[in-house]
Amino acid sequence: MNLHPDYLLNDINEPADLKGLSLDQLKQLATEMRQLVLERDSAIGGHVGPNLGIMEVTLAFHYVFNSPHDKVIWDVSHLSYPHKMLTGRKLGFLDPDHYEDVSGYTNPEESDHDFFEIGHTSTSVALAVGMAQARDMLGKHENLVAVIGDGSLSGGLAFEGLNNAAKLHSNLIIVVNDNQNSIAPNQGGLYQGLAELRATNGQSENNIFKFMGLDYQYVANGNDLATMIETFKDIKDIDHPIVLHVVTKKGAGYAPAEAEPERYHWRDPFDLKTGKDKQIKPKETYSGAVIDELIRQVKAGTPIAAITAAIPGVFDLHRFEKQFPDHYFDVGIAEQVSVTSAVAMAQAGIRPVVFENSTFLQRAYDQLVHDMALNSVPVVMIVRNGTISNGSATHQGDFDISYISSLPNVEYLAPTSVEEMISMLRWAIRQTEVPVVIRQPEKALLHRPATQDDYSNIDYEIAHQGSEVAIMAVGDFWALGEEVVTQLKRKLNIDASLINPKSLTNIDREDLHYLQERHDLVVTLEDGNLSGGFGEMISRYFGATNIKTLNFGAPREFADNVPTEVLAEWYHLMPEQIVDDIERVLHSM
Amino acid sequence: MNLHPDYLLNDINEPADLKGLSLDQLKQLATEMRQLVLERDSAIGGHVGPNLGIMEVTLAFHYVFNSPHDKVIWDVSHLSYPHKMLTGRKLGFLDPDHYEDVSGYTNPEESDHDFFEIGHTSTSVALAVGMAQARDMLGKHENLVAVIGDGSLSGGLAFEGLNNAAKLHSNLIIVVNDNQNSIAPNQGGLYQGLAELRATNGQSENNIFKFMGLDYQYVANGNDLATMIETFKDIKDIDHPIVLHVVTKKGAGYAPAEAEPERYHWRDPFDLKTGKDKQIKPKETYSGAVIDELIRQVKAGTPIAAITAAIPGVFDLHRFEKQFPDHYFDVGIAEQVSVTSAVAMAQAGIRPVVFENSTFLQRAYDQLVHDMALNSVPVVMIVRNGTISNGSATHQGDFDISYISSLPNVEYLAPTSVEEMISMLRWAIRQTEVPVVIRQPEKALLHRPATQDDYSNIDYEIAHQGSEVAIMAVGDFWALGEEVVTQLKRKLNIDASLINPKSLTNIDREDLHYLQERHDLVVTLEDGNLSGGFGEMISRYFGATNIKTLNFGAPREFADNVPTEVLAEWYHLMPEQIVDDIERVLHSM
Repeated sequence: MNLHPDYLLNDINEPADLKGLSLDQLKQLATEMRQLVLERDSAIGGHVGPNLGIMEVTLAFHYVFNSPHDKVIWDVSHLSYPHKMLTGRKLGFLDPDHYEDVSGYTNPEESDHDFFEIGHTSTSVALAVGMAQARDMLGKHENLVAVIGDGSLSGGLAFEGLNNAAKLHSNLIIVVNDNQNSIAPNQGGLYQGLAELRATNGQSENNIFKFMGLDYQYVANGNDLATMIETFKDIKDIDHPIVLHVVTKKGAGYAPAEAEPERYHWRDPFDLKTGKDKQIKPKETYSGAVIDELIRQVKAGTPIAAITAAIPGVFDLHRFEKQFPDHYFDVGIAEQVSVTSAVAMAQAGIRPVVFENSTFLQRAYDQLVHDMALNSVPVVMIVRNGTISNGSATHQGDFDISYISSLPNVEYLAPTSVEEMISMLRWAIRQTEVPVVIRQPEKALLHRPATQDDYSNIDYEIAHQGSEVAIMAVGDFWALGEEVVTQLKRKLNIDASLINPKSLTNIDREDLHYLQERHDLVVTLEDGNLSGGFGEMISRYFGATNIKTLNFGAPREFADNVPTEVLAEWYHLMPEQIVDDIERVLHSM
Repeated sequence: MNLHPDYLLNDINEPADLKGLSLDQLKQLATEMRQLVLERDSAIGGHVGPNLGIMEVTLAFHYVFNSPHDKVIWDVSHLSYPHKMLTGRKLGFLDPDHYEDVSGYTNPEESDHDFFEIGHTSTSVALAVGMAQARDMLGKHENLVAVIGDGSLSGGLAFEGLNNAAKLHSNLIIVVNDNQNSIAPNQGGLYQGLAELRATNGQSENNIFKFMGLDYQYVANGNDLATMIETFKDIKDIDHPIVLHVVTKKGAGYAPAEAEPERYHWRDPFDLKTGKDKQIKPKETYSGAVIDELIRQVKAGTPIAAITAAIPGVFDLHRFEKQFPDHYFDVGIAEQVSVTSAVAMAQAGIRPVVFENSTFLQRAYDQLVHDMALNSVPVVMIVRNGTISNGSATHQGDFDISYISSLPNVEYLAPTSVEEMISMLRWAIRQTEVPVVIRQPEKALLHRPATQDDYSNIDYEIAHQGSEVAIMAVGDFWALGEEVVTQLKRKLNIDASLINPKSLTNIDREDLHYLQERHDLVVTLEDGNLSGGFGEMISRYFGATNIKTLNFGAPREFADNVPTEVLAEWYHLMPEQIVDDIERVLHSM
């Protein structure tokens, strides 16, 4: 049900409907839309501060320009909620029954006003450059507006985009949405320069944008609607690239979000009155256990450096930072330098532990290959988000096994429990031979003892010795493996073996030989993409033998906001389905 | 034999041996070392211009600082020849018998004065930041000098490094070696700013380095040894990060290299007197055929955009650029923006064709995943250098099948001949559904007709219908496949089938079913890494059937300057070895 049938927004079906409105009416819309951001985010979770801060820029853009003829490209697009409300998708914010109809990012399948499905930072200028080049080649003349946050500017792609934007001899408006924040606080010298520009009302001679040959204009209050409208009117149809440096307030119009910008960057469902989380956070987490261990090690004198690229929150790193600020390094949204500087630290005798989300670590792939793997220095890395889950396709993290386990020299470990994870972490920090990456489990938290403490040679854990069928359950699919073994016994009276392979890169030849002797079928279960995954490594290994293999995981595809249970069914990852597939293979022998 | 027993360089065994020399003696060394660069490069190939240009900076560094206590980190490290001559490796330049003892890049295994094995650009500042952080944590105080070229500054990692360098409160000297060139000419607005700094003798108020909070000093002639020595003396032991902007001449001291900086960036063996290549370039190449086709298409009105990240030469792109400058885009050394802007172009109705080396495309992996694959727009990409070869480990390109073929939506095609490559290219440009990547063959150039012209559904080419054993030979391993079939017949009297699978991502189920019906063993041959490769995909497919599989390719390792024939033997890729392995499997059945 539409919670606000009285809202003026109900009359806005497309941006053209804004044209006749008065400034007061537009301001009323801003107030309504802020309320809708808060209502939807508090109900189902979402980005709060970025959407509140960009409200006036969005309204002014759609008031002045003619979307989708004129085009706006949102960086990260996590702040496109107001844009969505004005481009035919208001019901996704007015009516809780329709909240899930609208995704949290731009998506061309949702609307002609969206041009890309985007969820990573620092892409918008590069995309706009490509669109401008295409427009010019095709002899068209529409306005192109790229919006990029100050936080996103620390990523190398943003700089590469700006450098190439300066080569254009045609229209391009780059709105630098300067809210003086990244996800966490901004990091680096760039922000000193931006601060100087703010302090001088944009007048400082020293101006990185002008240095690169870009025109420049400054707007001191991007949350003032009249100013934004005038500015866009002045700049519309400009015949060359210009940076519009617009200062906004992250969380503008909602005091708690203004006061705590990192907490309100993204919020899980929360109580709008008290500001408290609706779900209670679990007391024990894998991240928490890792931080506990690092704190112990620093206290014991190990020269640990904890490194993150702007996402300390998801790894409980603020707790570490508070105790050991000199051992803590946030490089900003800049995954490449997070890996490369860790390589150098390791080379120089420090024990760097790098914390990455799989989907963002993709941005440092060459640094993994050419800096870390090639130099084979003892970098330790924790990777989370490598999982088949219900998230946005933009943040799909399950490519990690493919892109990490194929790296020479690297040991990629997949613990099944807290104890095993800490055991692996201790070894990773202790040894000095190779880079070690540890895949943080994402499903339920398990307690099981580790069965080795030195992982230089992988010794598979054979948790149950059976025959006929062997189940190799990787990392957080351990519980699934146990369930499959149970059901195989109950349904087919098969006493299957259950193996924890621990490593996604190296194999235990002795134990694989044992499997080959006593089993007809080896089944692999991995919480990741099958292409280039663990299962394929095992299938290749057994290819020329009499043993058969079956690999379970995700197919090579993107899944956008599909519930995890549904995905499990699609991908044949329900225990009953796995048992059925096993039965079918056994019957065909 | 040492060609120059009379050279002063013979007395220099370590940098300390420079300390007592006069300025004239140091200048004499520079002259000698320039001659040695030219002699070695003309004999075995190598980087010419970068090493000639950096001569005085290198001599001054080793004269003033105390390496390896003080540390220099060379970006790309293709200009480290003079550094090598002064750090115990002079014989690798004086004596042709020892030319091959010394690699073209820094390597810690060669010398304590080298800290990283590096061959990609834009890493040195990020590495130096990590080393500085480590030094500070360990309470040490040595000087750290990062050298980075102006061309390398266009890569995003360089910017991320500078941004984090500014956070240091300790010694770091960043030498910006400004020779006004990348591999090809510099691209982008950044170079306008650097030109302004040069024009004002470093005095311009608008200074990107100062903007980022870095101290700054300008040296107008970095090829003047006395100036460089004085400058380093002044700056030694500085207690904060500083950018030393040093203008040098690429190719300094050798007129042909000064006149043609792109041609003399890297040269294959050449005649030092005439400047001509020793080996005659083949008239017909895969790159040439691709450019011919693109020229035809542009003339016919197809809105083609050809995109490169600073390596037009290896793809014959200058020929295209000359004819159609408006269809040609060199983004500089900035692979990320090359992919992301192509995605936007494709979305806007242009047909972008992106030219990448596999080893450098690694730097745009997230742009492949999140921008190209997720948005599934019809970008066309040509990838070369995906091959098992005798190059430097720093440029090993054989990870491409793993990182590209696991991308959703993407079609990765592997042609076996010129005709097939052009057929695939035409389809890739014609269709509008998916991103298409084409793997350019690297071995001998073959002529064979294509057997399909629409690759929406892959139809395997069964070049020979046999039985018992099926050989699936991918791309440029086609000739190897033919040879294996021939030897199987001759040695084992096996009439093996020979299949061209064409695609590294999609399979022809019908033909695989046919293989399964008539064969006991399927053998895959791919010129790439086995981890996450084509063979594993096939082994997974057949895992639960009665057919056996054998996968041939490279193991998960780096190989540094090992002759291709030796690698083939190590990796069991000689036809006789493959036949032996097949025989062994057949006997075990």
